[in-house]
Amino acid sequence: MDVHTLAQKLHDFEGVSRKAPIADIARMFDDVRESYGGTVVDMGDDAAIIDIGGDEVILFAADGIWGRITEASPWWTGYTSVVVNINDISAMGARPLAMVNVMSSSHKDVCDGMLQGMKDGVRKFGVPMVGGHLHPDTPYNSLSVSIIGIAKKDCVIRSDTACVGDTVIVGYDMEGRVGKNSPYSWDTTSFKDSETVRSRFMIMQKIGEKHLVTAGKDISNPGTIGTLGMLCETSMVGAEVDLGQIPKPADVALDQWLMIYPATGYIVTAKPENVDECLNAFEEVGITAAVIGKIDDSCRVKVTDGENSADVFDFSKDLITGIKE
Amino acid sequence: MDVHTLAQKLHDFEGVSRKAPIADIARMFDDVRESYGGTVVDMGDDAAIIDIGGDEVILFAADGIWGRITEASPWWTGYTSVVVNINDISAMGARPLAMVNVMSSSHKDVCDGMLQGMKDGVRKFGVPMVGGHLHPDTPYNSLSVSIIGIAKKDCVIRSDTACVGDTVIVGYDMEGRVGKNSPYSWDTTSFKDSETVRSRFMIMQKIGEKHLVTAGKDISNPGTIGTLGMLCETSMVGAEVDLGQIPKPADVALDQWLMIYPATGYIVTAKPENVDECLNAFEEVGITAAVIGKIDDSCRVKVTDGENSADVFDFSKDLITGIKE
Repeated sequence: MDVHTLAQKLHDFEGVSRKAPIADIARMFDDVRESYGGTVVDMGDDAAIIDIGGDEVILFAADGIWGRITEASPWWTGYTSVVVNINDISAMGARPLAMVNVMSSSHKDVCDGMLQGMKDGVRKFGVPMVGGHLHPDTPYNSLSVSIIGIAKKDCVIRSDTACVGDTVIVGYDMEGRVGKNSPYSWDTTSFKDSETVRSRFMIMQKIGEKHLVTAGKDISNPGTIGTLGMLCETSMVGAEVDLGQIPKPADVALDQWLMIYPATGYIVTAKPENVDECLNAFEEVGITAAVIGKIDDSCRVKVTDGENSADVFDFSKDLITGIKE
Repeated sequence: MDVHTLAQKLHDFEGVSRKAPIADIARMFDDVRESYGGTVVDMGDDAAIIDIGGDEVILFAADGIWGRITEASPWWTGYTSVVVNINDISAMGARPLAMVNVMSSSHKDVCDGMLQGMKDGVRKFGVPMVGGHLHPDTPYNSLSVSIIGIAKKDCVIRSDTACVGDTVIVGYDMEGRVGKNSPYSWDTTSFKDSETVRSRFMIMQKIGEKHLVTAGKDISNPGTIGTLGMLCETSMVGAEVDLGQIPKPADVALDQWLMIYPATGYIVTAKPENVDECLNAFEEVGITAAVIGKIDDSCRVKVTDGENSADVFDFSKDLITGIKE
């Protein structure tokens, strides 16, 4: 696939385009946001940052899962709801504290499956589910989970703080497999022991505490380039990515890999002097990390194969979330 | 309506019986709960209590709204999602910090209505909505909101700590009206100024800080007697309630009133020496409060009209939530 075709495919990817309505929601709360001086509110990040006084902040996020996946695999729905919520917190350098859920289904077997999935996630990641609300009589299945975490105020990794000249690094847990339920899911946790999983998903906390990065974000539904796009959009910068530098499993095509939600995968930006230590920190816990590009002032996200390059996003006309700081 | 008929009606009320599956969920997490020494987990309360070290604890709760109400009034869905979540926190004596939501609808007008309702709730109560997740393509409408709050560890009001001999007090904001969408809803906030609303919903924080009560709970879907039932069940005590002492709007029948979700309504239990100060605290902010009964060791919740009495719940055979400490 040539670079222009790939760039267009990544631009049009549903995982990216579904993010668009977020801007409308963020704007709805614009005027009421201003009245809360004590709260660091950041709709561009996966979790909001709540100032509770003192050195520490509380992070707070929510994610929901619905539709075919809940029927195809209630267990996976429950399990993945835990994974995505923990990623929202841990990717920002915080320690997850607890989750709560709102579950809807009129089928007992679906409820049982979702609960078992959540329970297995709780065991694997060591983050408790402390409350739940069940709608036992809905004509649909859905699961919403929210999570809180805690971090030192000056160690939080945000996505709106990348600077021109920073190096772009990607880190993936390559010991995974394409999920049964979607070609764009990559399971890195369900078959691994708890200790390995916990050390990998908590790596961003170490990186935050050592101040090794200027910005970061976990790679989620928009995939690797889409997630970098969101980071650049909220940071109001651009980036160029060398496709040849992106670590990739041998048996997965590049276009598919770039649209995968890698479960344990991060985009970070670092000052050149911190790049080596950052790469080492990832590698120490078994995450494959590589320098894949550079932040620039173009307000475009470009991909290159060394010979040709093409824009995936041009923020003079494209909106991903539409959120700009 | 005679006491026995009323007792049976309150026992069978759907607002009570829908609580039953909670016990199953709580039990699912029993064995994983034990591994988290630092977390005070309490499924009997509306919010879980999270120990973050130091003098303060974080409270964390979730509530979901779905179904007919979302079509009948998207605005009310959004607004009431804020009200119920704030009650979960404020009724436990904590200060609400922030909310996040997961919203599902494929209808733009429904989304806009729910958002506007949330926004108006945010303005009214002064608690920010700091994050959101939208499913713009679901074949149903639903809204899940979760909330966090903060309190001094020794000021939290729990529902599992009522003691034999305590006085039962009820407090209602009587300046309300039956909601348009249900005979069992009572709107006490949408038409009032923000200052009045905030002073009333934050009264439990004052009561907690002064240590005036032994236990408490906001009156929610199970209504006044159902909520007292939940409090007695988790505290493993009984209670007798004198129906004639319950404050009631003149134009609402007693059976309807006892099944209403009063929006700003609390059941608390107090040592006899603190009863007067507790009643005064409620009255000072415009909440009508009265002594309605006494906690005993019967493990039954009884109502009496002065001549006859009847059991509403007998915990030797009835389960409301099934949660016992």
